[in-house]
Amino acid sequence: MTMTKKVLILGGDGYLGWPTAMYLTKLGYKVAAVDSYFRRWACHELNVEPLIDVPNMQIRAALHKDLTQRTIEVAVGDITNYAFLQKVFEGKAFSSGWGPEPPDAVIHYAEQPSAPYSMIDREKAVFTLTNNLVGTANLIHAVREYNRDCHIVKLGTMGVYGTPNIDIEEGYLDVEHKGRRHKFLYPKAPGSLYHLTKAQDGDMLYFYVRMWDLRVTDLNQGPVYGIETDDTLKDDRLFSIFNYDDVFGTVLNRFLVQAAAGFPLTVYGKGGQTRGYLDIKDTLACVELSVRHPADRGKYRVFNQFVELFSVNELAEKVVQAGRNLGLKVEVKSIPNPRREAEDHYYNPAHTGLLDLGLQPHCLTDEVATQMLAHVMKYKGRIQRDYILPRVSWL
Amino acid sequence: MTMTKKVLILGGDGYLGWPTAMYLTKLGYKVAAVDSYFRRWACHELNVEPLIDVPNMQIRAALHKDLTQRTIEVAVGDITNYAFLQKVFEGKAFSSGWGPEPPDAVIHYAEQPSAPYSMIDREKAVFTLTNNLVGTANLIHAVREYNRDCHIVKLGTMGVYGTPNIDIEEGYLDVEHKGRRHKFLYPKAPGSLYHLTKAQDGDMLYFYVRMWDLRVTDLNQGPVYGIETDDTLKDDRLFSIFNYDDVFGTVLNRFLVQAAAGFPLTVYGKGGQTRGYLDIKDTLACVELSVRHPADRGKYRVFNQFVELFSVNELAEKVVQAGRNLGLKVEVKSIPNPRREAEDHYYNPAHTGLLDLGLQPHCLTDEVATQMLAHVMKYKGRIQRDYILPRVSWL
Repeated sequence: MTMTKKVLILGGDGYLGWPTAMYLTKLGYKVAAVDSYFRRWACHELNVEPLIDVPNMQIRAALHKDLTQRTIEVAVGDITNYAFLQKVFEGKAFSSGWGPEPPDAVIHYAEQPSAPYSMIDREKAVFTLTNNLVGTANLIHAVREYNRDCHIVKLGTMGVYGTPNIDIEEGYLDVEHKGRRHKFLYPKAPGSLYHLTKAQDGDMLYFYVRMWDLRVTDLNQGPVYGIETDDTLKDDRLFSIFNYDDVFGTVLNRFLVQAAAGFPLTVYGKGGQTRGYLDIKDTLACVELSVRHPADRGKYRVFNQFVELFSVNELAEKVVQAGRNLGLKVEVKSIPNPRREAEDHYYNPAHTGLLDLGLQPHCLTDEVATQMLAHVMKYKGRIQRDYILPRVSWL
Repeated sequence: MTMTKKVLILGGDGYLGWPTAMYLTKLGYKVAAVDSYFRRWACHELNVEPLIDVPNMQIRAALHKDLTQRTIEVAVGDITNYAFLQKVFEGKAFSSGWGPEPPDAVIHYAEQPSAPYSMIDREKAVFTLTNNLVGTANLIHAVREYNRDCHIVKLGTMGVYGTPNIDIEEGYLDVEHKGRRHKFLYPKAPGSLYHLTKAQDGDMLYFYVRMWDLRVTDLNQGPVYGIETDDTLKDDRLFSIFNYDDVFGTVLNRFLVQAAAGFPLTVYGKGGQTRGYLDIKDTLACVELSVRHPADRGKYRVFNQFVELFSVNELAEKVVQAGRNLGLKVEVKSIPNPRREAEDHYYNPAHTGLLDLGLQPHCLTDEVATQMLAHVMKYKGRIQRDYILPRVSWL
């Protein structure tokens, strides 16, 4: 590993962005984090505040520096504004310690990340489209303008694939048809407008890779769970933004909070919906492995980023057991599915690329689930029960 | 055919939109046309004026009414502005004769249609992205708000497919993989940012069809050629906007003008690039057939809209022969390809859907090519030779 590699994190205040920033400084990378604070704003707008209050990114960076002597450069701004992104690439958005050289790698988390948010109404659909696609287009053009060698690591989602009746391969699909063969980017069938934008931004990155020989890694990630990373243990104020509401919360995190609040776990429909999950610690490892081993020039590399497959019913069962371990009686309740999706389907996605790079995955053991639930229990008094039931319909 | 069917044409001032409007009134449809005049503005901006001056849409609609007693309702506005689109769907943008009922069908031509334009710089790439995707998203939401039964006929492009090494099927691809089968939307590999947005808007329409059971027909059209339709013959001022420049001109139209100007036909690279072409008269017929036979509710129907396959070299040869017929000596010159594309490739796209609906295709015979060239010769004095060479590089 080059110890002085400069890494720019877009969306550096988020659930994944902030712990990634801390993690990379620990491994010797030079790190800058940028965020528009959209997520904080939307949490206020929809009144779905995170479980744990965390200070803003500037305050957290200062605190992190006090505790570790490691620097995270920070800038607040919106990458859909190209003039701001130019300042970021020119180093003018940061202290002089960052320097004028453009980054060697950019980790792109700066997209509106919620499926329900994108389905609330037309305005939020159009916001999601323009934020996610214009932001990515600007990033591509900045890389072209400042450093074509810069490696773009974009967080994608397994949700772009939908649930096809054949195996989901890792990014590409070899098709034999009428005696001829062609290798396609794996076809997408996303299940929300948000997921659609992640298919669209992937197609856009793939296009500009073909035109301009960029280096891109697209990490099609499954739902992430978890609260702690090694760095958050130092101080509660270094925690990630942890949402458990129907809009920004991911399913296992929501279940943990429901269990802690004595609320039945809300399974949407039959609960046979199966996805690939991973611990937040593995997200950090996967992103770092990607940065450490960049995609070649002219290569759009895709990894399917998850560790274990579970159905929603299986996840609920794990939380019921974790509750039992802590003396809580947790109930499971099926409610009408607000989404339009298959509730029972074939699902067999490949995921060998990151293991081949050296990922040591964390599994969702009974112990891990119980620890997470115990952690959430500490904040039980802050849980808002009216955040729990889904309020956004896909129809 | 229901003779009172209300059809809304978005992009009604354009090369295809305007003759479509005239054609549909003749067949008894009630027609309204909307345009933002982006294309006129961009022709001024880039100084690539059309070969033939045509009055604006309001003037042409009045002239058309005088000549035919048929009404084309018109409104000037931008569909990326949802408040304007609401007025259109509520009928408030038109005269009282149009009425307050929402349209039964919308023909969506209102996208930035030029590949080179989208590759000029970042601003134009972002304009193309937001214009094409926000416009389409607004249309989808207007259909949902006012009439879910309304049939959206969107003009797509064969360019979304790229040049895969297997047959291009009509919209969907049945894949057998490891002993299982799945039907995918045919995977896309567009060759410009513009073409990418047409793949992205198709994916968006397909998504909302799955969610909201809309009716959509996507017409993946090849390059169109031609100047006249039956209705333009009445008065020169009713002609389509006819571009022959490197940004908005399609290849055969450009060749005709080059031949008329005594300029060598500019073949990009080897000239083996093969595409499916059609006469503008067939575009009108295909669009009307689609409107007359709407897609079912919940169906995203795709037609590959072209008539004959030609390589660029074959097209050039046809224009050389047409020139010979008119006593012109036409040369062909290969110039460095400003695009990044395969110049020699397999190409076998299916196109049976529109023939099954009853399309009677026009072919590019020697007579047709010669007639078109003779027509262009009438405007020889207006040809700007500095519009001819490509100025936009893909790199």
